Amino acid sequence: MTIPAAHTTTDERQYVLTLSCPDTTGIVAKLSSFIADIGGWITEAGFFTDPESGWFFTRQAVRAASISMGFDELSQRFAEVASEMGPDVRWRLWDTAKPKKAVILVSKEGHCLHDLLGRVAQNDYPMDVAAVIGNHEDLRPIAQAHGIPFHYVPFPKDAVGKRKAFDQVADLVNAESPDAIVLARFMQILPPDLCEMWSGKAINIHHSFLPSFMGARPYHQAYRRGVKLIGATCHYATEDLDDGPIIEQDVIRISHKDTPSDMQRLGRDAEKIVLARGLRFHLEDRVQVYGNRTVIFD
Amino acid sequence: MTIPAAHTTTDERQYVLTLSCPDTTGIVAKLSSFIADIGGWITEAGFFTDPESGWFFTRQAVRAASISMGFDELSQRFAEVASEMGPDVRWRLWDTAKPKKAVILVSKEGHCLHDLLGRVAQNDYPMDVAAVIGNHEDLRPIAQAHGIPFHYVPFPKDAVGKRKAFDQVADLVNAESPDAIVLARFMQILPPDLCEMWSGKAINIHHSFLPSFMGARPYHQAYRRGVKLIGATCHYATEDLDDGPIIEQDVIRISHKDTPSDMQRLGRDAEKIVLARGLRFHLEDRVQVYGNRTVIFD
Amino acid sequence: MTIPAAHTTTDERQYVLTLSCPDTTGIVAKLSSFIADIGGWITEAGFFTDPESGWFFTRQAVRAASISMGFDELSQRFAEVASEMGPDVRWRLWDTAKPKKAVILVSKEGHCLHDLLGRVAQNDYPMDVAAVIGNHEDLRPIAQAHGIPFHYVPFPKDAVGKRKAFDQVADLVNAESPDAIVLARFMQILPPDLCEMWSGKAINIHHSFLPSFMGARPYHQAYRRGVKLIGATCHYATEDLDDGPIIEQDVIRISHKDTPSDMQRLGRDAEKIVLARGLRFHLEDRVQVYGNRTVIFD
Amino acid sequence: MTIPAAHTTTDERQYVLTLSCPDTTGIVAKLSSFIADIGGWITEAGFFTDPESGWFFTRQAVRAASISMGFDELSQRFAEVASEMGPDVRWRLWDTAKPKKAVILVSKEGHCLHDLLGRVAQNDYPMDVAAVIGNHEDLRPIAQAHGIPFHYVPFPKDAVGKRKAFDQVADLVNAESPDAIVLARFMQILPPDLCEMWSGKAINIHHSFLPSFMGARPYHQAYRRGVKLIGATCHYATEDLDDGPIIEQDVIRISHKDTPSDMQRLGRDAEKIVLARGLRFHLEDRVQVYGNRTVIFD
Repeated sequence: MTIPAAHTTTDERQYVLTLSCPDTTGIVAKLSSFIADIGGWITEAGFFTDPESGWFFTRQAVRAASISMGFDELSQRFAEVASEMGPDVRWRLWDTAKPKKAVILVSKEGHCLHDLLGRVAQNDYPMDVAAVIGNHEDLRPIAQAHGIPFHYVPFPKDAVGKRKAFDQVADLVNAESPDAIVLARFMQILPPDLCEMWSGKAINIHHSFLPSFMGARPYHQAYRRGVKLIGATCHYATEDLDDGPIIEQDVIRISHKDTPSDMQRLGRDAEKIVLARGLRFHLEDRVQVYGNRTVIFD
Repeated sequence: MTIPAAHTTTDERQYVLTLSCPDTTGIVAKLSSFIADIGGWITEAGFFTDPESGWFFTRQAVRAASISMGFDELSQRFAEVASEMGPDVRWRLWDTAKPKKAVILVSKEGHCLHDLLGRVAQNDYPMDVAAVIGNHEDLRPIAQAHGIPFHYVPFPKDAVGKRKAFDQVADLVNAESPDAIVLARFMQILPPDLCEMWSGKAINIHHSFLPSFMGARPYHQAYRRGVKLIGATCHYATEDLDDGPIIEQDVIRISHKDTPSDMQRLGRDAEKIVLARGLRFHLEDRVQVYGNRTVIFD
Repeated sequence: MTIPAAHTTTDERQYVLTLSCPDTTGIVAKLSSFIADIGGWITEAGFFTDPESGWFFTRQAVRAASISMGFDELSQRFAEVASEMGPDVRWRLWDTAKPKKAVILVSKEGHCLHDLLGRVAQNDYPMDVAAVIGNHEDLRPIAQAHGIPFHYVPFPKDAVGKRKAFDQVADLVNAESPDAIVLARFMQILPPDLCEMWSGKAINIHHSFLPSFMGARPYHQAYRRGVKLIGATCHYATEDLDDGPIIEQDVIRISHKDTPSDMQRLGRDAEKIVLARGLRFHLEDRVQVYGNRTVIFD
Repeated sequence: MTIPAAHTTTDERQYVLTLSCPDTTGIVAKLSSFIADIGGWITEAGFFTDPESGWFFTRQAVRAASISMGFDELSQRFAEVASEMGPDVRWRLWDTAKPKKAVILVSKEGHCLHDLLGRVAQNDYPMDVAAVIGNHEDLRPIAQAHGIPFHYVPFPKDAVGKRKAFDQVADLVNAESPDAIVLARFMQILPPDLCEMWSGKAINIHHSFLPSFMGARPYHQAYRRGVKLIGATCHYATEDLDDGPIIEQDVIRISHKDTPSDMQRLGRDAEKIVLARGLRFHLEDRVQVYGNRTVIFD
């Protein structure tokens, strides 16, 4: 018996446009005129211009029912508008009726996996989980209980064996063409070529308030330093370890009484909540990366 | 010797448009086309449509230097646009070069007054304080130290005397035509006609997380109920005591060890921070009231 | 295949003493002398005297290995000490090697159940779940995936049928003699006699920051009132609905953009975290109730 | 005219004992027996043993009126008890009727000074401010408005001139024999010999969530890194810049919209609240330092 993970989006279907380009007068007018002309009813709109780079970012959600044409025609029509806006325009359209697809990478610790799969099971998360991949067998049962394929890929300690394992992981991931590769406490450092290949899609949860305590055993580092708050950071995985664009962060208060092992227990709540929040932003096309920073239209 | 409270706005001058009307397709297009046509560079833009009432709200900040015409001409030009949008459009334009004017009403407790005047003295708050009015003499020194006129209006206990005192307060306030009347722990209940006269301008800080513990002595009520968090609420004063539209709220964690008197001490930090934040939203035209709720474009 | 829920307490075994009595000079001396005389090594100690009632509360954790005698002899020996302290002394001793036993009552919403069972599966929670009882079948799969018996007890709408259902629930619960009866979004109001029978053991999670929005549909109430924070409250169930002693509370920030349905989604995170924290306090004997308030030795 | 800063402690007078020593069975029994023997009524008691170093820490507050002897006799009597406890015992007794004395060092930014003096003026803070020392004249008016001597000590850029300035500051500070030297955004790095001389008394507020963004311009560093929360840290000043024992920390949420200058404005609230909280812990003898960590009995 497995937990049903069927999607029943209760919210109204929407088309979500995200766009960025060098800022100039009239962009908002152009976009909103286009939407108005096709009868589009905007339900959510965010705008931001980065004062340093002069780059403009927007995310606009339009009620699907307010537009007479279908999604494909809309995409075609908007492509023309975008092409008139110059060569540096980056944009995408998402039909919320199509849930995003994710592959989740895990190791032994299951709090993030339990949390994410619980959300999906509750129809409370805009995501289909295509597969769970673990470098240990421990979390196979929870994946299977939710009816999700679990792939066990053991990671040897030697460099050659590890590289082979990563190649196997890459094959399993790429077979699903996922929108998100979620490193849910995966505990293995992604090699640069995979970071590059999954750029802007590989999402990691680090168990510290970055940039504090980068690298290994952050709770032990936090204990040594005697901080009064610990945190968690959800960020895109990049070649520079623990240094990718940050999507979301939060902290939890601790005291002198808390050992590293207490922090691990307390920190799990921060980790799972921060990952769930950051991943939701990503899945709902609320994140846009520029340099090492992110615009979040929440 | 007094503390200088001069305004030196370091941020660039902006024109801030706030507007609300019944939602219909094309409003954003119309507004942004107008702004684009006059060369306006939008630095901040917020939009919201209330799904229940179908009412649309926006706040847009435009770099003053990007527009060739002056503020008065801009206002005139926009009035024409607005009039074409139908009879239910409500709008205002604010030139950030003109700081808002406030009158602060106090009693004996000075933590909110100290905090607000400290911010103003640091040039850190978009407000000129025209006067402080107290129903006790206690806070005269701090007002005077900041070079601000202090008016002492004693409040007798009898209804007739109290009414006369309120009339005197009203005259002192109205003489300044302030943008905000700040009840900074004033401890006197504003009569309905003053609430009406200062509708949308009289801002109160209540020392509880409303709607919990309305009325008198909220910390004692909180103690009786055994809550684990106490709070503060910044809201517009209305005829219905402690029931006006909420602008901002926050909470502070307490424990079984905290007596009502501890809560008073701890709560003061919440009160002053929440009032400062809520009042800033008001002063920067970030608040729009609809029914008993507020849209905050923060 | 089921998720293993075996307990492997990694922390050192401890004996936990909780005691309350009317305060008088020398209690702490008496208790600590007793512990010192038997060689006890105190690892955690909390004290509190309620200034109003003059009642004294303490919780002390002693390293089991530091005491030569066994738990039963310790209990016997301490009973003598306690009896010398007068008739009003209430105390208990808990051996942390014996995990507490819980029965969880649910309806259709599974976020709290997913969260609690995930914690147990990770050996991260001092609890054995003896059974899950649901008035709907929806959550049977998740319980069974964790290898926990699920009992379906349908609740008819008529008073007689409902009473019979409650009797059936009571029988199922009492058969397990649990330390905690967890109302994990059970959605049925416990009748007074069950509240009385399970006094101090039935733990509810209410989806508001009590005493705000007592009763039904708190998120809709919160929406109507236009609050800027929503919350959750973990409390002991008592005859007075939503008015029992509060164990834990927390809040989440919302904005004008959030509909009641958004609040439900956002609030679930608060609900599950607050329940998990409050229930942990209960299970670890960190809560003592006095009147309608709680001492929490956290 | 100046703001009155008179102390009227409304809370009951207490004697506060703080003690630390290598942990061994029976310490709590010995201390509490001593207090019980002299009729002492304990109103607050905290205990902690550091599992790594095996060092024991306690803070106990006793109602002064419950003890027949005076403070001096109590001190003498306790000295005997302490001497029996071995050579490594460190302890102090504080009579809450004697408020602690502070000297505050400032530069140009006044938010922390405004905040602290406001608290003192409200009789809401257990501190007498003996003097304010500034390396700029800017904050003289606020100090004088509160009736507190202000000393202007200009800091030249050259090493020799700077050293002389520090010597002058040291003389002014030491003339007051303060319990706390508060670096309230002083912006000058204390030389090692002054850190050493004022060890455990010099309290700094750093405008970041340490150990993130040590050194200069932390808000600019935070902006570069794209963090989603900024913070403030109250710590003891030590020879190792920004690396002293942490007393208190907190964070404030920011977004992509916030420039370094926005962060400065937002961060001021964190800075002043964190400093006020950390300094209160210090003044009330709630802090004990061990290695680079602190025990806080709050």
